[in-house]
Amino acid sequence: MTKPAVYRNAGDLLPPPIARFVDVAESCKPELISTPEKPVGLIDAEKDEKALLGWKAVSRGSVEDMEVLKTGDSVIIDFGGHRTGYFSFDLQSYKFATHPADAPCRLRLVFGEILSDVAEEFEPYKSWMCKSWLPDEIITVDWLPQPVKIARRHAFRYVRIEVVAVSMHYGVRIENPIAHAVTSCTASVPPLSFASAGSEISDEDKTVLRRIDEVALRTLRNCMQTVYEDGPRRDMRLWIGDLRLQALANYKTFQDTLLAKRCLYLFAGTPFHEDGRLAATVYEHPQVTSGGQSIVDFTLIYAAALLDYVEFSGDKDTGKDLFSVALRQAEIAVGRTNSEWVYHVENIGGMTDFGAWHFVDWEPTLDKVTSIHCIIIFSLKSLLSLSKLLGLPVPTISTPTSSSVPITEVIEKMTASALATMYDPSLGLFVSGPKKQISWASNAWAVMAGVAPSQEVAADALRRTYQHPDTVIAMTPYLHHYLVEAFVKAGLKDLAVKHIKGYWGSMVTAGAETFWEAWNPKLPTVSPYQDFHINS
Amino acid sequence: MTKPAVYRNAGDLLPPPIARFVDVAESCKPELISTPEKPVGLIDAEKDEKALLGWKAVSRGSVEDMEVLKTGDSVIIDFGGHRTGYFSFDLQSYKFATHPADAPCRLRLVFGEILSDVAEEFEPYKSWMCKSWLPDEIITVDWLPQPVKIARRHAFRYVRIEVVAVSMHYGVRIENPIAHAVTSCTASVPPLSFASAGSEISDEDKTVLRRIDEVALRTLRNCMQTVYEDGPRRDMRLWIGDLRLQALANYKTFQDTLLAKRCLYLFAGTPFHEDGRLAATVYEHPQVTSGGQSIVDFTLIYAAALLDYVEFSGDKDTGKDLFSVALRQAEIAVGRTNSEWVYHVENIGGMTDFGAWHFVDWEPTLDKVTSIHCIIIFSLKSLLSLSKLLGLPVPTISTPTSSSVPITEVIEKMTASALATMYDPSLGLFVSGPKKQISWASNAWAVMAGVAPSQEVAADALRRTYQHPDTVIAMTPYLHHYLVEAFVKAGLKDLAVKHIKGYWGSMVTAGAETFWEAWNPKLPTVSPYQDFHINS
Repeated sequence: MTKPAVYRNAGDLLPPPIARFVDVAESCKPELISTPEKPVGLIDAEKDEKALLGWKAVSRGSVEDMEVLKTGDSVIIDFGGHRTGYFSFDLQSYKFATHPADAPCRLRLVFGEILSDVAEEFEPYKSWMCKSWLPDEIITVDWLPQPVKIARRHAFRYVRIEVVAVSMHYGVRIENPIAHAVTSCTASVPPLSFASAGSEISDEDKTVLRRIDEVALRTLRNCMQTVYEDGPRRDMRLWIGDLRLQALANYKTFQDTLLAKRCLYLFAGTPFHEDGRLAATVYEHPQVTSGGQSIVDFTLIYAAALLDYVEFSGDKDTGKDLFSVALRQAEIAVGRTNSEWVYHVENIGGMTDFGAWHFVDWEPTLDKVTSIHCIIIFSLKSLLSLSKLLGLPVPTISTPTSSSVPITEVIEKMTASALATMYDPSLGLFVSGPKKQISWASNAWAVMAGVAPSQEVAADALRRTYQHPDTVIAMTPYLHHYLVEAFVKAGLKDLAVKHIKGYWGSMVTAGAETFWEAWNPKLPTVSPYQDFHINS
Repeated sequence: MTKPAVYRNAGDLLPPPIARFVDVAESCKPELISTPEKPVGLIDAEKDEKALLGWKAVSRGSVEDMEVLKTGDSVIIDFGGHRTGYFSFDLQSYKFATHPADAPCRLRLVFGEILSDVAEEFEPYKSWMCKSWLPDEIITVDWLPQPVKIARRHAFRYVRIEVVAVSMHYGVRIENPIAHAVTSCTASVPPLSFASAGSEISDEDKTVLRRIDEVALRTLRNCMQTVYEDGPRRDMRLWIGDLRLQALANYKTFQDTLLAKRCLYLFAGTPFHEDGRLAATVYEHPQVTSGGQSIVDFTLIYAAALLDYVEFSGDKDTGKDLFSVALRQAEIAVGRTNSEWVYHVENIGGMTDFGAWHFVDWEPTLDKVTSIHCIIIFSLKSLLSLSKLLGLPVPTISTPTSSSVPITEVIEKMTASALATMYDPSLGLFVSGPKKQISWASNAWAVMAGVAPSQEVAADALRRTYQHPDTVIAMTPYLHHYLVEAFVKAGLKDLAVKHIKGYWGSMVTAGAETFWEAWNPKLPTVSPYQDFHINS
């Protein structure tokens, strides 16, 4: 047998981790706190045509009311809310006559963030994403009664337990079920008071916004483990794009800075390429390793994440230590501009080019040229602000035509080229690509980058894009965030609140206990991965 | 919801354990020794019409030759021989490009004692026995590479590993697979020398017998855990009938007495009924508990097991301590004889009567009256021998007609009634039931009980039964043993050796590494449980 060309260690083909940065990251690793939580009760999932995701929960009493389960029986335990953590219970046997539990008990457990997870079958599975990520387990317990603790971490509100097999001589009950919620977040945040911005918001809206805020805080807390995880149910990993948003929300809420510092150092410590390019994601387990892919826009957003961190924490040492890492990302991207100072790569939509995946959003029809171009400017402006904050001179980078150009000059050139080639004066908004595609992404990022010559032009572009019948909207909350941030930046606070209520509010209405990675209220079960059950 | 009538604790409906006996048993609990064993190599199972069980192994090289496995791939590791124990390995990921193992790895493992276990699908499963006893596991490993140890004990030669799911970015190899063999047996036994009985046996026969002896010793060693397990693959429990044969073989081979003593005390400590009746089986886990059923013939054989133990070990204290327990079993059974001193119960074939299951063998057509009647005599004779060995007076029991009858008198009466009603002089053999069924069981037990008036009559009965075209043969090695023991007792040593070669030899030919619970060489895949895969 001949072995195919494969690489044994995660580090093969990638530069080795940079020990000094990784060491700092490890020194900032937070403790995880575990909190035991009792269930609310038992439920059945029933079909409900009126529900956005098609299901409603019907109470089946308390856990103490659970019947004795035989082969083929199942039960759904509702823990209320959502947590990241572990599940334990006592597997108690009930015999029907003189026999003790005379054979092992085989169970299947399904962990549900939402009702459809535990109400629907996972087969047939249609995604290209690895099936092993589906949140189910099969266990066999040899001797009963027995305390059981599921070793793998899950993210869940519901646990469905199916009895795959018990012998004819006994049945089982799930007694003392406990969810052990884990997080590194030690702070708590009171409900929104609307103290400073209350008068113009109706009481009804306040209720909606408080509920959205509550779900947002839970999402954030449940993602705060030993890194900011993009989602605690599936890949459980740190990604630059998610890091920036989670840290930013955190500075306004839980105010943790240790985790942000750790994450910034983890990326610095695990470059994707010897040219200094950052990886899009970092693995913590079994050891700290580069994630094996780079996302152009994420490398650029690292600068903004570093700026946010230094601004909030005041930790200038970290800012200085990591400044050149952030600067290098912009330098590499600027290196891909053409003679007109327009970002240009072959096949910007492809995600298989080694180290040149452009993400922006999961929407497959999105033209990304304008977005990426503007994200470069956004990154350069973040670097400029950071250099001022750190008392550094205006940074310079090498470009295709010069070995040392001040970034102020690059910002000017790229802003001018964006206005010249990406702004459509007749439409009054930003477009992207040869087909002049109108999208939220292009306009949000143009506004974030400050490309519009005035706040009025910015606000008009956003408003027109938002209302345009042909506009390409966002699939991920990630891009929805930048639309809202752009609204705020352009002075469109009303639109920001309206959009938050409409978009995040619709997830809450659909039964979200935490916000999802992908969501389109008009296509509730659509998935960027071709199977709704693998979304998270 | 109303709960059905069920009983929470194993002890409900049964008398509590007798602490004094259980304490002695626990003081005799042996240490388990774990030995790491490396695999022989990789194999494929190929169909082979000439093989008794339909399969042959084809080498696929060494474990080091294993290809990188992707979703849907599988591999069979051959450890050679058979052991009871645990399985561990390193799950190594091999990436195809820059990505590390970016999703969990889900594996299915199937543990095979014989090739068909790993070559055939378990579905559709046809047995009434609990499906959870099938020797497979599904595990999900979150972070790779990772050392993996399967927590549950298995009995195996082969391990089939199927990759249920890995992501598109990587494959896996099973590296450093180790079988951790466990047993409480510390002794070893040299191959059969035939020193005292060599001249009349051909070299060819010696080879066959040495191979049978080797498999028998392995079976015994692998069943020697913290009790004599009836089989280490499935129920892993101690049963009286199996105990007697395993201990008897042990006295001639590994010469352990501690385990036998522990097992005798475990039964004494966990009675099935307050009248003193023994349970057929004892559970060790999660705590020492009566097995919840009683088998009449097993309760009677306890006396023989105690006699064997005292004879070999010289431990008269244990003999005296447990004598009344053994005697009580015979007394209860004698209490079921009618006025003609013939054993009589309603529905002797039924196994659902509370505490009155008559086993003898798994063969469903077997008439068991003669066997059980003779086993009572065999038990009484064991008690008589034991009382002599211990220097006790002739024991007395209460019978339906008298409160104190010497067992010598009961033996005499029951032997006479057996000869009068169960021996057919015209056929020259023992029969059973109204249809005068001829069977190995009836004649083996009549000879074991010494019912025949001479060795000649005994030998003739066995020979005729063995050759008779209508005879009901045995399904279990358990009853085959008593046929062979009866052959020896009747002076038919040649027939004993011939039968051992034919029966146990056919299991070896069929690929047995240990002897099975059930086996009919003419119907190789027949099962007392309706599904061959649940035999063990």
